[in-house]
Amino acid sequence: MGTTTKLSIRKAKARSAAGSDSRAMLKGQQTKAAIVEVAKGLATHLGLEGLSIGVVAEMAQMSKSGVFAHFGSREELQISVVREYFKQFEQEVFYPAMTAPRGLPRVRALFEQWMRLVAGEVQAGCIFISGAVEFDDRPGPVRDALAGSVKTWLAAVLRAVEQAQEMGHLSAKADAKQIAFEIHGLILALHYEARFLKNDKTIARTKAGFEHVLERYATAPSTQPSSK
Amino acid sequence: MGTTTKLSIRKAKARSAAGSDSRAMLKGQQTKAAIVEVAKGLATHLGLEGLSIGVVAEMAQMSKSGVFAHFGSREELQISVVREYFKQFEQEVFYPAMTAPRGLPRVRALFEQWMRLVAGEVQAGCIFISGAVEFDDRPGPVRDALAGSVKTWLAAVLRAVEQAQEMGHLSAKADAKQIAFEIHGLILALHYEARFLKNDKTIARTKAGFEHVLERYATAPSTQPSSK
Repeated sequence: MGTTTKLSIRKAKARSAAGSDSRAMLKGQQTKAAIVEVAKGLATHLGLEGLSIGVVAEMAQMSKSGVFAHFGSREELQISVVREYFKQFEQEVFYPAMTAPRGLPRVRALFEQWMRLVAGEVQAGCIFISGAVEFDDRPGPVRDALAGSVKTWLAAVLRAVEQAQEMGHLSAKADAKQIAFEIHGLILALHYEARFLKNDKTIARTKAGFEHVLERYATAPSTQPSSK
Repeated sequence: MGTTTKLSIRKAKARSAAGSDSRAMLKGQQTKAAIVEVAKGLATHLGLEGLSIGVVAEMAQMSKSGVFAHFGSREELQISVVREYFKQFEQEVFYPAMTAPRGLPRVRALFEQWMRLVAGEVQAGCIFISGAVEFDDRPGPVRDALAGSVKTWLAAVLRAVEQAQEMGHLSAKADAKQIAFEIHGLILALHYEARFLKNDKTIARTKAGFEHVLERYATAPSTQPSSK
């Protein structure tokens, strides 16, 4: 929402400016977006820490100083990649799932889209997973951007679980954060075992694990043995 | 086992050699071990890809050529770190758990030691997890050493689960690989959420998740709803 507003303001400003200025600004924005796209592709393979202005410039067929003109630093470029990746994540996972009815159908849709993205990225890798390992020891704005994106997404998953509880689709007595944690673990195991260990059947195991979580927290009341 | 045998042969050879040669060899081995120890500590923080002969030499208070004399390449040093990390993993996780009785107690012990190691490494990071992300896209001997170590460990977890099934502690009808997969996911979620997101309560959630997996596959026969 904030981004859209900013873009509209920019567009309005551009319109009010001289025609040539307007075209130059538009071209600048397009170039910047193209650079981020190249950098994002590179980061899914080499990690955010694998990004260098030099390699990105070469792949974008630009000069290093040209790339520098758009991003003052490598860090700025990394943050732009995180933002762009989050936008893509929203487009491919979050928004499609939000069209499913609130409650269990939406929880299922969120998980399925998430799983599809991670499984589809087996050749490339998920920046939210690889970036966590790269930046868990490196405080700073890139880590903040990454952790902020991941937290926003996990909060959306948690909200969907809570709504499913409110609607009586999942047990109201269950700990929603526990459910979200167990789901997150399945996605991480999918990424790890499919991408690094090249195990087959990981998608089937991820799906089965998800059904097990749902069955466990289904509304049908069952007296759970207390865990010590 | 192979390592022990090799070491014994080396020791025997050293004994039969001239005293001064023997001392020189021993000193060489000690120096090599000390370098690997420094490199391992560094790798848990910076990742295996963060290792450089230069930095390791500096931290070990040696010359770069001195380090090179022990490891012909950075790759060789990385592989030595993976081997040493695996040995430590065996010492701290595998062997202590093997003292627990075969069956469910051993499955519990393996998980508890594993969880303890990963939770204890929240400040440092697990090379088996960070390395997977670093090397999933990079075929070669370092990746092979890493994947080989992880597979050996996961096979030990699977074997413990299968034994628990044979002993009637876990349902014989369950898919042992599915159980191992779900357990692996909990460990990965612990590492991710504790280390990168700095969430508290992750250990409690990991333990609860593990109990849920065990409860699900407990021997008490229950008609599980079939997942589609």
